[in-house]
Order: sequence, then structure tokens, then C-alpha cells
Amino acid sequence: MPSTENTFPSRDAHRAWLSAQAALPQGFRVGTTRFDFTPKEAPKPSKMTLTLIALDSPTPDFAAVFTKNAFPGAPVLVGRRRLAEPRLGAILINNKISNVCAPGGVEASETVCAAAARLLGLAPTEILPCSTGVIGWGLPVESMVAALPQAAAALAPGSILPAAEGIVTTDLYPKIRYTSVGAGRVVGIAKGAGMIEPNLATMLVYLLTDLVVPRERLREILSRVAGETFNRISIDSDTSTSDTVVAVSSGRVPCPDLAAFEAALRQVCADLAEDVVRNGEGVRHVLRVRVSGAPDAATAVSLGKAIVNAPLFKCAMAGNDPNVGRLVQAIGKHVGATGPALDLSRLRARIGGQEIFADGAFRLNYDKEAALIAHLKSAELYQSKPAADGTFAPPVDYPPHERCVEIEIDLQTGPAGATVLGGDLTHEYVSENADYRS
Amino acid sequence: MPSTENTFPSRDAHRAWLSAQAALPQGFRVGTTRFDFTPKEAPKPSKMTLTLIALDSPTPDFAAVFTKNAFPGAPVLVGRRRLAEPRLGAILINNKISNVCAPGGVEASETVCAAAARLLGLAPTEILPCSTGVIGWGLPVESMVAALPQAAAALAPGSILPAAEGIVTTDLYPKIRYTSVGAGRVVGIAKGAGMIEPNLATMLVYLLTDLVVPRERLREILSRVAGETFNRISIDSDTSTSDTVVAVSSGRVPCPDLAAFEAALRQVCADLAEDVVRNGEGVRHVLRVRVSGAPDAATAVSLGKAIVNAPLFKCAMAGNDPNVGRLVQAIGKHVGATGPALDLSRLRARIGGQEIFADGAFRLNYDKEAALIAHLKSAELYQSKPAADGTFAPPVDYPPHERCVEIEIDLQTGPAGATVLGGDLTHEYVSENADYRS
Repeated sequence: MPSTENTFPSRDAHRAWLSAQAALPQGFRVGTTRFDFTPKEAPKPSKMTLTLIALDSPTPDFAAVFTKNAFPGAPVLVGRRRLAEPRLGAILINNKISNVCAPGGVEASETVCAAAARLLGLAPTEILPCSTGVIGWGLPVESMVAALPQAAAALAPGSILPAAEGIVTTDLYPKIRYTSVGAGRVVGIAKGAGMIEPNLATMLVYLLTDLVVPRERLREILSRVAGETFNRISIDSDTSTSDTVVAVSSGRVPCPDLAAFEAALRQVCADLAEDVVRNGEGVRHVLRVRVSGAPDAATAVSLGKAIVNAPLFKCAMAGNDPNVGRLVQAIGKHVGATGPALDLSRLRARIGGQEIFADGAFRLNYDKEAALIAHLKSAELYQSKPAADGTFAPPVDYPPHERCVEIEIDLQTGPAGATVLGGDLTHEYVSENADYRS
Repeated sequence: MPSTENTFPSRDAHRAWLSAQAALPQGFRVGTTRFDFTPKEAPKPSKMTLTLIALDSPTPDFAAVFTKNAFPGAPVLVGRRRLAEPRLGAILINNKISNVCAPGGVEASETVCAAAARLLGLAPTEILPCSTGVIGWGLPVESMVAALPQAAAALAPGSILPAAEGIVTTDLYPKIRYTSVGAGRVVGIAKGAGMIEPNLATMLVYLLTDLVVPRERLREILSRVAGETFNRISIDSDTSTSDTVVAVSSGRVPCPDLAAFEAALRQVCADLAEDVVRNGEGVRHVLRVRVSGAPDAATAVSLGKAIVNAPLFKCAMAGNDPNVGRLVQAIGKHVGATGPALDLSRLRARIGGQEIFADGAFRLNYDKEAALIAHLKSAELYQSKPAADGTFAPPVDYPPHERCVEIEIDLQTGPAGATVLGGDLTHEYVSENADYRS
């Protein structure tokens, strides 16, 4: 799945690499501002970053896919309506508060959009709002409106890095990926499974291109690509109320070939999806499950997700334990529960290239186990170590490498396949999500 | 759900209470033996307990339900065949090795059954075999056959406690529940979500009665009762390859009323199900979710399971954090993903009796939050504390109390409801399943 497999000896090396990815396509500017405010729901002051991604001129060519959570945030409700508008002029993103199920949430989003529109000379309906953060709190509308002029004044072409940094919450590092098609570029940024205060993992992705891609084709391509990339990852099986993926074309560069554009977008999305997993909460091992020989892609995806979401298998991976019993249990649980007439009799399973299961029985020996343990250790991002108070936190704020635990499941029953990415289940995950209060 | 809500100040108090539950119904004897063996898959010696539950005379009146995992263990395959046999004479249970996907597993089970049958004067097909433990290893058939005479010699009427102790693996304590119907008794024991070495959580349950309940009625009743009790709990969403629930009648006491028997069996199963959750791996809070106002029971069960299986909500419970955003997220995720036309607009949610969500918005204030935190703390089984090496283990080997976190979800859209039990997600869970190797 990755276009490259990098190693980063230090945070500085990772930042230099990010900067090299960060050139904005033509026709876009980004600007951010950070400000203090006091939420009405909590007595202590807090900080929020506003991020603007503006087009030099509004475009009809934009697309978005949103969370399937049945309690979507107010910005998702507004965003779905924006898809019917003739043009998009800017995207306005705030972190800290996700504006989900708060009284008056839609009105709050629209008020902030209207203020941004006045500053940018746009119609309010030309602004797409996005929020990520605490669920249940309301937006601090007045503070946001007061801060907007600073974000607008900061708008600049050149690098998307300020936006990549502006949208994060407790992500350990910003995420940027790009690729070129002819003279044009596709650049994407993502906010991953970090937590706010801590609260709910959310994913926001912005994909910008200067290539000419007509609105309807862009929407069709984004829907397909998101289904094959972001919809095939899972950190902890929880679905955010705010997940949003947006693609925007400034239409500045002729697109030689829409198929090439789609391939480029897919690569950027696949890389960002892997970045999101690698920086997932408490993730110490990225698990890449390649399911092949399935009757159809949906079966392959659901089987892959069942594996990366099985808690006991995830714990075994955290412990560098090639516990193949738990892998087989996870497969059997899924097939037993979902009840497809799926033939498991020819199933073959490999981890790190080692065959561990075939013909209905395990294929194990001591040498193979040693090779499996070595594979798991090589894929570990860092070693787990408790602090003096018994809590656990990642010791790095950059990805030391891009290796994965490679799991292959061949059903040998059909022509279809899929790759699914997930993470292990660690003390760092529990600390991030349970240890912040007693 | 519980028939009682006990508190136990000490292990001795809990043991005394267990002993008071433990009288065997007429017509049954139990015997166990513990022995050393060396698995062929691992170089170090190990210990296994064999447990026999024997009828004074074989009965046609027995029933069993088995795991839905698509890779069932060999004893499950054999057990399904035993349901067609005219009589059951004894149940033979081993811990330590689950005999799942090991070459020759069915033959190994049958060989041990044949040896037990010779000792007990039964036909081999009158013995129901059960195994729990490591997945992938083969049974040590010769050692088991050599140990069987000691188990048979130990067979005695009176107390089921030896069997309740014999079937456990790393359960913190044995589990026994009983009730009376007229002059007869229903007694049940369970092996819960402990781990072996550690490997895979499995559940084994044996329900014994001296009441006359004809075979076909017993099977119909067990299927219904298991569906309403054991199928409504989840420790970690993983489904064992060995789960088995067996009900046996010795037919010694006339049954005044089959409906009363069914109610008694349901109570025993509900209590055992709660025991299994309370002693679930790393469980510090038992979560009881009562869903009401659902269009049908299946919808209520699946919604309840989605809540007790949502990792972020489970972590919040572990941290005594009434994080209602994560509860709403879990509901929205499930309804969004499964796509029923379920109306959430009238949903009301309570935790510990406090209303936290109604009419599409949160209902929160400081006083309510304080009450919620107090409720969570009162339901905590013990406080989490790391050992010097950073690992976490439960400090008690008995249940200090039987309180739950009480979560009520009223959909207000229909007449149906269900109660689902689950646990929180803790450092103790991760330690048990990831920290045993590096």
C-alpha cells in the first residue's frame, strides 16, 4: 500500500521530509490562528486553532464524504447541504470542540461561516465548516468570529504545512502526502486518531489539487477512493461523529488523464490512511492484513476488519506474540457470526511471510516461531515503558519507521481481495483513554 | 438481572457462600484429578485437571448449545454428534488444552471418552467431552487415560464445588449458582473468561437438575434461556472456539411445572452470566445496559452489545469517567453502520439513574456529573495499581461486591427490550493478554 517505506531517525528528519511534501497546488492559500477562550461548559480556559483553506477563486469542483455515524456533528449536517451549492470558496476548520449534539449547533456553524464569508468576499454557503474535538460542547462563536481576521490575514500560498499543523489535536505529528500528475499536484493532509482532552477519535482529511477534475467526476472518484482507503482502516472500531474527507480542485492545470488522477488520489489517500493508523492512539504495531481469494471485495474487507478489531489478537501483537490461535479465533468468530456460506477449508494464513495455517490445521515449529517474533519486533514503533505513576505514553513524536506486521489470508475460494490496516491494543491506548481521571 | 446483590468482605466469606450454593441435585456425582504432563508442543512440564460429572444412571434428558465460531474445537464437533445419542452418562472436562485445529483432535477426544466409558461401565458415545485452554496444541491422550482412574475414584455425591474448581483455568474464583423448584434443584457452574498461559477466553457451563424435564423440552428451554442470558454478555467481543453450555436432568424429582423450571434455569443462567462478566479478564466495572422501547429484542440486544463493546466507552468506564459523548458515539456508530431505519430522535439515556441525553441533545450539569462519578466509583471492583515492573493484576481473588454500572437506553419506538452485560477495558486486560512476553 505505501508508495515508499521511510525510516526517520529523528523528529527533525521527519519534519524536513514533511516540508518537502508540502507545496500547495496552484490556486490555494492556507492560514491559521490560535486563540484562548473559556468554554461555557467548563470553568478553565482553553485554546483553539482556526484553519482556513481558501481558493483564489471559488470552484464548482469539490467533493466530500462524511461519517456514517447516526449522530453526526452539526458541521457534517451543514457539509452535506453544501454539496448542493454551485461553488466552494473556502474550508474553515476548528479543533478542540466537535459541535456534536450541542443545542443550536447548526446555527453556530452557520454564524461562523457567515463571518468568514464576509472577510473573504464569499457567500456563506461557499464556506465548508469542519469541527473536531469534545463531543457535547457548543462552539465559542464570539471568540471564533473575533479570531477569524487573524486567520484570514495569515492566508498564504506556498506550503500546506500550517494547515496540517492547525487541524491536529493530540496527533503526535502532522500528516502530509502528495503526488504529481503531469504538471499538476495532488496534496493531502489528515488529522488522525488523536484525542481531545481526551475525548473522541476523529478523522479529517483535505485533498487539494490544481488539476482540472469536473465536479461530478471528482465526487465519483472520491467516493471510490475513500471506500478503498479510509474505509479500510480501523484503530479501535469506533466511528467518529465528525469524520470528513474533502477533495477540492482549483482547476488551474489541465488533467492529462482522469485515470491517472484517480490513481494519484488513491495513492495519496492510501498513504494518509496508513499515516493515520501509524499515529493511531497507542498504536505500537501497524497491522496490514491482505485478504485474497475471497468471493468478493466486501467479504475480504469485513474479514480483514474482523482481524484488526479482535481485542485478543491486537493484545498479542502488542506483546510481540505470534499467537496464531487468536488469529484463527478472530476469523472463525467473524465467519460464524456473520454466517456467510464461506468455505474456510482451503484457508491459508501467513504472518511475516511464514505459513502458519493450512488445510484446517496449524503449521508451527520453533524456528518459525522465532522468525515470527523477529518480524513482530521489527514492526514495533517503540518499546512500551510505564512512567513513574504507572501511566504509559509514546516516547516519540515522529514515526521511526513505516514497517507493518504483514498478515496474509488466502481463502482460495474466489478472485477478490482487499488490504485492511489496523493497530495493536496497548497500555498506551488505555492510558490515553482511561487514565486522565480517577 | 441478579437474584441477589451480595457483598463479600473476604475470600473466606465468598468461599463460605459458594459452599452454601453447592449441593448437588440427586442422581449426580463429581470427581476430579490433577496431574503433570509434558506437552509435545512445548518443552516444559504442565498441569491439567480432569473433571468428571457422572449420572448415577444414564439419562435421555440432556441438552447442549455450542459456540458459533466457524473453527470449533474437536470436543464441540464430537458434542454436536452426542446430541443424537439416546443417553448421556457422564461429562468429561479437561482444562489446559482446548483441542482446537490440532491434527487428529476428534480421534483424541474419542479415545479419552472410550477410556472413561470403560471405567464407568458406559458406552463411549454416552460420554460428552469438553476441553478448554491453549488453541492449537493436541491433547496428551496417554497422560489423560492414565489419570482417569483417579478422577473416577473421586466421584462423590454431595457438593459440586470440586467440579466448579476443576474446570477453571485462570479464573480468579469458581462460579456456582442454584435455585429450587418444589423438591428439586437446579445447580449450575461456569468457567469464565480466564486465560490459559494466556491464550483464549472460553466459557464452559454445566447445569444439573434432578427435576424431570423431558429431552426435547429441555433442549427447547436451554436454547431459549441461553439466548437470553449467555448470548447477552460480552467481555471483549471475542468468541471462543470452545464455548459450551450443557444441561442435564437426572429425572429423580417430579417437576411441578415446566414454566417454573424454565424460570429457575433462566435465573441460574443469568446469575452465572453475570459471574462470568464480573470475573472477566481485567474487568473492574460490570456494565449493565438495559435497552427498552426497541422495535424488537434483536435490535435491543445488538444495540446493547454495541455499547458494551465500544473500546472508547469501555476505557472511559475504566477511568470512572461518565463520558457521555462516547456513549452516544457508540450508539450512533452502530445504528449508522447497521443501517436499520431506527428512529433515534426520541432516545433517552440514563447512567446510574441520571438522565444524560434526551431530545437529541445532552442533559448535563456539574451536579449530575458528580453523581455519575460517584456511581461509577461505587461500581468499581478494585482500584487499578501497577506492580513494580509496570504490569497490572487484580488484587482480589473474590468479587468484593455485585454492583454494576447501570446504563438505560430508552428508544421509545417500540415494545421490546433486552439487558446486556459487559465489562470495561483496563490495563489489567492488556497486561493479561499482552504483557506475558516481550
